[in-house]
Amino acid sequence: MRIDAALLERQLDELYAIGAEPDGGAYRPLYGDAWAKACDQVERWMKEAGLVVRRDAVGNLWGRLDGSGGSAGGKAVVTGSHIDTVRHGGRLDGALGITAGLAALRALAEAKGKPKRPLELLVVCEEEGSRFATNFWGSRAIIGAIGPDEAETVTDAPGVTLARAMRERGLDPADIPSAARDDLGAFVELHIEQGRILETERVPLAVVTTIAGAVHLEIVVTGRPDHAGTTPMDLRRDALAGAAAMIQAVQSIAAALGRPAVATVGKLRVEPDQINVVPGRVTFTVDLRHAVLGGRRALEERIRSLCETIASERGLGIAVRTLHERPPVPMDGAVRQVLERAATETGAVPAALVSGAGHDAQVLAARCAVGMLFVPSIGGRSHCPEEATDPAHLTLGTRVLARALELLAY
Amino acid sequence: MRIDAALLERQLDELYAIGAEPDGGAYRPLYGDAWAKACDQVERWMKEAGLVVRRDAVGNLWGRLDGSGGSAGGKAVVTGSHIDTVRHGGRLDGALGITAGLAALRALAEAKGKPKRPLELLVVCEEEGSRFATNFWGSRAIIGAIGPDEAETVTDAPGVTLARAMRERGLDPADIPSAARDDLGAFVELHIEQGRILETERVPLAVVTTIAGAVHLEIVVTGRPDHAGTTPMDLRRDALAGAAAMIQAVQSIAAALGRPAVATVGKLRVEPDQINVVPGRVTFTVDLRHAVLGGRRALEERIRSLCETIASERGLGIAVRTLHERPPVPMDGAVRQVLERAATETGAVPAALVSGAGHDAQVLAARCAVGMLFVPSIGGRSHCPEEATDPAHLTLGTRVLARALELLAY
Repeated sequence: MRIDAALLERQLDELYAIGAEPDGGAYRPLYGDAWAKACDQVERWMKEAGLVVRRDAVGNLWGRLDGSGGSAGGKAVVTGSHIDTVRHGGRLDGALGITAGLAALRALAEAKGKPKRPLELLVVCEEEGSRFATNFWGSRAIIGAIGPDEAETVTDAPGVTLARAMRERGLDPADIPSAARDDLGAFVELHIEQGRILETERVPLAVVTTIAGAVHLEIVVTGRPDHAGTTPMDLRRDALAGAAAMIQAVQSIAAALGRPAVATVGKLRVEPDQINVVPGRVTFTVDLRHAVLGGRRALEERIRSLCETIASERGLGIAVRTLHERPPVPMDGAVRQVLERAATETGAVPAALVSGAGHDAQVLAARCAVGMLFVPSIGGRSHCPEEATDPAHLTLGTRVLARALELLAY
Repeated sequence: MRIDAALLERQLDELYAIGAEPDGGAYRPLYGDAWAKACDQVERWMKEAGLVVRRDAVGNLWGRLDGSGGSAGGKAVVTGSHIDTVRHGGRLDGALGITAGLAALRALAEAKGKPKRPLELLVVCEEEGSRFATNFWGSRAIIGAIGPDEAETVTDAPGVTLARAMRERGLDPADIPSAARDDLGAFVELHIEQGRILETERVPLAVVTTIAGAVHLEIVVTGRPDHAGTTPMDLRRDALAGAAAMIQAVQSIAAALGRPAVATVGKLRVEPDQINVVPGRVTFTVDLRHAVLGGRRALEERIRSLCETIASERGLGIAVRTLHERPPVPMDGAVRQVLERAATETGAVPAALVSGAGHDAQVLAARCAVGMLFVPSIGGRSHCPEEATDPAHLTLGTRVLARALELLAY
């Protein structure tokens, strides 16, 4: 099989130019003009590669090589990624899975002809939460998990509903259920790591074992706003001093547990936020992730318990609420073995990695066997114009993807 | 001497009603309508009490009982406080020193007649930084410390200069130097504590020993913004985790030093402040106060050093800059003795207290012997509508003030 590395890089450049922002990066929010232009571009490439193209009710784009087996080959083997981006998004997040999938299907068709099982390239319309107050819109439509009122109630920042944005693109929200598929056999995605583990460990490729579960907590610490000059240290109930002890505890607990446990305090607000007033109230978030549900729950339990102890010792109030929760999703064992075999046959010894970030595979796992390949991110940078991967790693990832699709579909 | 406690409470109520805000508290910003109305009200009360009234070039209001001694009694003995308030200010901050001073002068004039030395009530036009980007405007004018361009360059939030606001009140900025006085002998002020030490220790009165010096630092901690899901704990450079360790250190160092050392982190900003991004940059302030310059410098030095160590251990950048600095100002020893004697003779055993908050006395100390009396603040509350003091403590403070003025002026 011949992977056209130059074409892959050129197509990545062309996609990155669609939705380019004046201050760097690209932005292709769901159902926007850049989004539509990018979909049209990929559709042209699909047709040039000989794929049979269709769009589903939410705007997912599918390109198909029919199977030669009985009943047209049975359940489909699918690869691909999402076409939408965050603001100031990078060149590879999503785009790599699409262009590499296209390169793999083209190479397979040229070298091996018609597959036994149907082989499809999927361009997911939305994964990032790039515009509307929801995410995984495309993959949730494919598994039939869009709520009946969702299109009419979920809006973007200016208040446009998903339904209105769909209609403006010629899509009918009433048709959403038709996007669901029950004929998928496997979904395999090549993606950038978006972290720096592979780079640090000098490994060019990873097979994902699990997509980590996450919990987002909001913690409100209540003390007493006092005059910073007239209130001795021993008479204070300082909400920020308490929150600082909690942040230390959150970090220490996760660090002591070791990989893949992570805990992050990312947002924090102080009230009244005045230089000469002891903080009376602090609100902060905790993002907890772990590969195993029990591990994640134990992590959360320890953090809640220690924060409550710290509050109690300092005479502070504390309220903890869960903003968001999703369970970890293990990748399919058989697909993992195929990916490992494909990597080994291509000459690479892949790492086994937990994905800390979310991906469409965690949604599609409800309908088919899923697996993911990661290539290294230079400096771990992602969701920014600096997002980059060594071209040799891009080619290697594409080769392994193609071989895995061959093993699954031929 | 007879202190009219009912009149004192009534005048406090009347002043508090001027500039009352719909959502609680009063606001009398410098040169505003409420400020002017309050000045006029106090001027009427001064005249009713038989004082000779005048206003100086910046709008400080003076009421005088002439002295009977040689050269009209020599240098003046002055009491009073400021008429301006913070937003949602309370009933006592500033207003107590004015109304209690008036009650004391009235009682002295009735009971003792003409003083030997001139005895004056001073209504300071501004102390709080209530409107313009400066403070101690009134007392700085009295010591001749207003910069030549200050009135034309310092503005309020909408951009009105001090000079324009003065002219709108009929005051000529060119006359500011005429407000300076070199004939002040002593300044004594009764004020609320604005903290909870007296209440906690069940002491009804304090003689201030020193007005603490303060330093305001701004500390910027720089790490690396990473994806909260994909970056293991051991590969992070988390600016907020570092800042949390620093906040803990700031608090511990001040607490270990004990009273009167205080250190407060009051403002904090996280960047990018997203739930799923490791903080790349944190900016926070430190307010440090101590009664002794050496102690304050040692406190600052230890905090700077420990924060730099924490940053270095965690691979974080750190930049510390001084936003504001003022030295501690000790009260005059002889005036303190007079205040202690007056308290003892009135039947109270006063505490000796460092003022953590700033007051006009720290400015006027450049021209005369200064001293202050504190009465307890209920719950330590101040700069808010809940600001209150037991009426018995208000009367006690006024009695002690009157006796001290008698000792100084008769």
